Amino acid sequence: MTEVNLQDIGERARAASRELARAEPARINEALGLIADALVQRGRAIGEANTKDVDRARESGLGDHIVDRLLLDEGRLTGVADGVRAVAGLTSPVGQAIESRVLPNGMRLARRRVPLGVIGVIYESRPNVTADISALCLKSGNAVILRGGKESIETNKALAGVIRDCLKDSGLPKDAVQLIESTDRSVVDGMLQMRDYIDLLIPRGGAELVMRVAKEATMPAITGGIGVCHTYVDSAADLDMATSITRNAKVQRPSVCNALDTVLVHSAVARAFLPQMAASMAAEGVQLRCDSRSLSIIGENGSDLISRAEPEDFGQEFLALVASVKVVDSLDEALAHIATYGSGHSEAIVTGDYAAATRFTDEVDAAAVFVNVSTRLNDGGVFGLGAEVAISTNKMHARGPMGLTELTSYKWVGLGSGQIRES
Amino acid sequence: MTEVNLQDIGERARAASRELARAEPARINEALGLIADALVQRGRAIGEANTKDVDRARESGLGDHIVDRLLLDEGRLTGVADGVRAVAGLTSPVGQAIESRVLPNGMRLARRRVPLGVIGVIYESRPNVTADISALCLKSGNAVILRGGKESIETNKALAGVIRDCLKDSGLPKDAVQLIESTDRSVVDGMLQMRDYIDLLIPRGGAELVMRVAKEATMPAITGGIGVCHTYVDSAADLDMATSITRNAKVQRPSVCNALDTVLVHSAVARAFLPQMAASMAAEGVQLRCDSRSLSIIGENGSDLISRAEPEDFGQEFLALVASVKVVDSLDEALAHIATYGSGHSEAIVTGDYAAATRFTDEVDAAAVFVNVSTRLNDGGVFGLGAEVAISTNKMHARGPMGLTELTSYKWVGLGSGQIRES
Repeated sequence: MTEVNLQDIGERARAASRELARAEPARINEALGLIADALVQRGRAIGEANTKDVDRARESGLGDHIVDRLLLDEGRLTGVADGVRAVAGLTSPVGQAIESRVLPNGMRLARRRVPLGVIGVIYESRPNVTADISALCLKSGNAVILRGGKESIETNKALAGVIRDCLKDSGLPKDAVQLIESTDRSVVDGMLQMRDYIDLLIPRGGAELVMRVAKEATMPAITGGIGVCHTYVDSAADLDMATSITRNAKVQRPSVCNALDTVLVHSAVARAFLPQMAASMAAEGVQLRCDSRSLSIIGENGSDLISRAEPEDFGQEFLALVASVKVVDSLDEALAHIATYGSGHSEAIVTGDYAAATRFTDEVDAAAVFVNVSTRLNDGGVFGLGAEVAISTNKMHARGPMGLTELTSYKWVGLGSGQIRES
Repeated sequence: MTEVNLQDIGERARAASRELARAEPARINEALGLIADALVQRGRAIGEANTKDVDRARESGLGDHIVDRLLLDEGRLTGVADGVRAVAGLTSPVGQAIESRVLPNGMRLARRRVPLGVIGVIYESRPNVTADISALCLKSGNAVILRGGKESIETNKALAGVIRDCLKDSGLPKDAVQLIESTDRSVVDGMLQMRDYIDLLIPRGGAELVMRVAKEATMPAITGGIGVCHTYVDSAADLDMATSITRNAKVQRPSVCNALDTVLVHSAVARAFLPQMAASMAAEGVQLRCDSRSLSIIGENGSDLISRAEPEDFGQEFLALVASVKVVDSLDEALAHIATYGSGHSEAIVTGDYAAATRFTDEVDAAAVFVNVSTRLNDGGVFGLGAEVAISTNKMHARGPMGLTELTSYKWVGLGSGQIRES
């Protein structure tokens, strides 16, 4: 165990963030280009570090799923490098004027985007986050303090080493990216207290980490990545569309936060819709956990995939090929269910009824509310943000997909010629 | 002491906020109009309640300054009513689309402004805050939980009663405005823990309250209202302009957060500028606390107003006719002083030099940075925001003057026709 001086790390990050805020955008882009090149050129050393992590994970009996997330082979490394190049190609939000005008007294006033300062990131096993999030922070002019999972520590050290070397070669402060090399759990406690040094803390990992950060962080933190997502099939739904949308929302990538968890269906169409949906889901191997009304319609069919829902199947994020199903008698009942069990992430209605669509989008309180589309569309890439830092379920600052812009603050800049306040 | 059920208050506020979010803007405006009328019509009852507070304050020996802040006579009440009417006349940000476009897949995507939900406000003696902040919260579709100072409890109860009656008469939930009637200090502790019920906490009061909320609140909170404000008189300054600006920044309203605290002056113009400024400040009764170099130029003149600065005179918010003065040898030294001693609120340079103005606005990290104007201009009214909720020194969410828009969040609304995610 290494003794970590978090205050020293914080002070270095703060100093680097000041330098970075003054750096020309071209210099930052140059550094990102160097990083992308070096990730490939130094792929062998990174691969050797990664092999240590992978071997240790296998020896300690971690599951194939986790070992696979750790793996950073040549193909994946090329993908990471391409991602860094893509970030370099985005337009930096820093320096943009949000609004600009001349006040009646003649002062020219603008709100100008500035970096937040220092971003802290606590993440788990996937080492690609080290490069991805460093690129996003650098592009938006922020310094970053990284604390990765202990399973990927050797890979993370290799990646951070490459990034820091490239920063130095570009004339930028290498402390703009710092990896905390200790994997001691007390480091996370320490980071949660660094309100003087970290302007925004981003947890990237499971629900336990996210909830802990939300509760214990002394600085602003993003709460996100937890999605209990509903799709409500209204009495006026196009049932073929509803089948396609629910299937896509559940199976296209079941392990992510905007995947479907619960189908709510109006009783007027339940008999027509549920057998059709159940067949479509069964073809994809999806388990359905049904309330008594939906179970009586779908029947158990002798299929292992259909079962009776337990109370905890509602309000649960499955992250797997599992969904719960419930019949409701009205839009109001659907809205009430979502208000009770939803996590404010992504919610959808399938309907051809104008009033139902309007009420749903007005009344559901979530980062993204959808009519007649899959909840999987709640994504920075799909929304055209260029890059996605996280999907926030906070209401303050940023809500929904966060891009580079959401890693910035602003300052008011007033340019005058002697204006004073009269009253 | 009343036993207060904060959970019950929180649940009522949450329910009211849901109802308010669905209310037509015209209904909210109608309620604000009724409130403004009732504040005047029921002025006698409010005045009687206020008299109790004022009498109690006098009896307990509170200073004239505090007693004056408590006083809500007919003239002031008319002003408060006018303020409520002015808020009713503003454009509500709720429902506005921040951006709106059609994605390549045909989904129509908009970011739509929505109320934050429930605002908590902890404030001190001035009872007008009860009406002002209620109007701002209602107009932006938010419910509010108010905790005023114990000195103004009778007045606050009378005002909240009037407001709640008018909400009811307009068909809006009266629990959209709730005043916590207990003045027990434990109520503040309790409010700081209400993260499940309060979406944003706003402290309106002195530095002690603001710092306590910043440290202990479990929900997002506005940090603001603390301004250690510098004006740097550069070597290329127009010295008459610098004299006018520093005088205005100090004396036009010395008790507020954007008033000047420290004058930094470049050594090249110190001999020409300081005597002129000192005479201008002396005419207004301003005490100057001078570092040794500025003291040697200004001299003590036998004047009681000029004294040697102590270390604690730098980085202090005076809120009175007092300023500290320091000679620096370069823009860099001024920038370093501001980085060390400023509170990130309002900072100004007086200069005719393009490069100095650019560096100052780029490098000073504050909510508002100014060239050739008085720091007193950092104000929601001056900036054209229509109303000012607070001046934030946070970097997240809102920075600088906060208007109605800063009491909102947004949701992403996606309207489609069967779009699903392909990759």
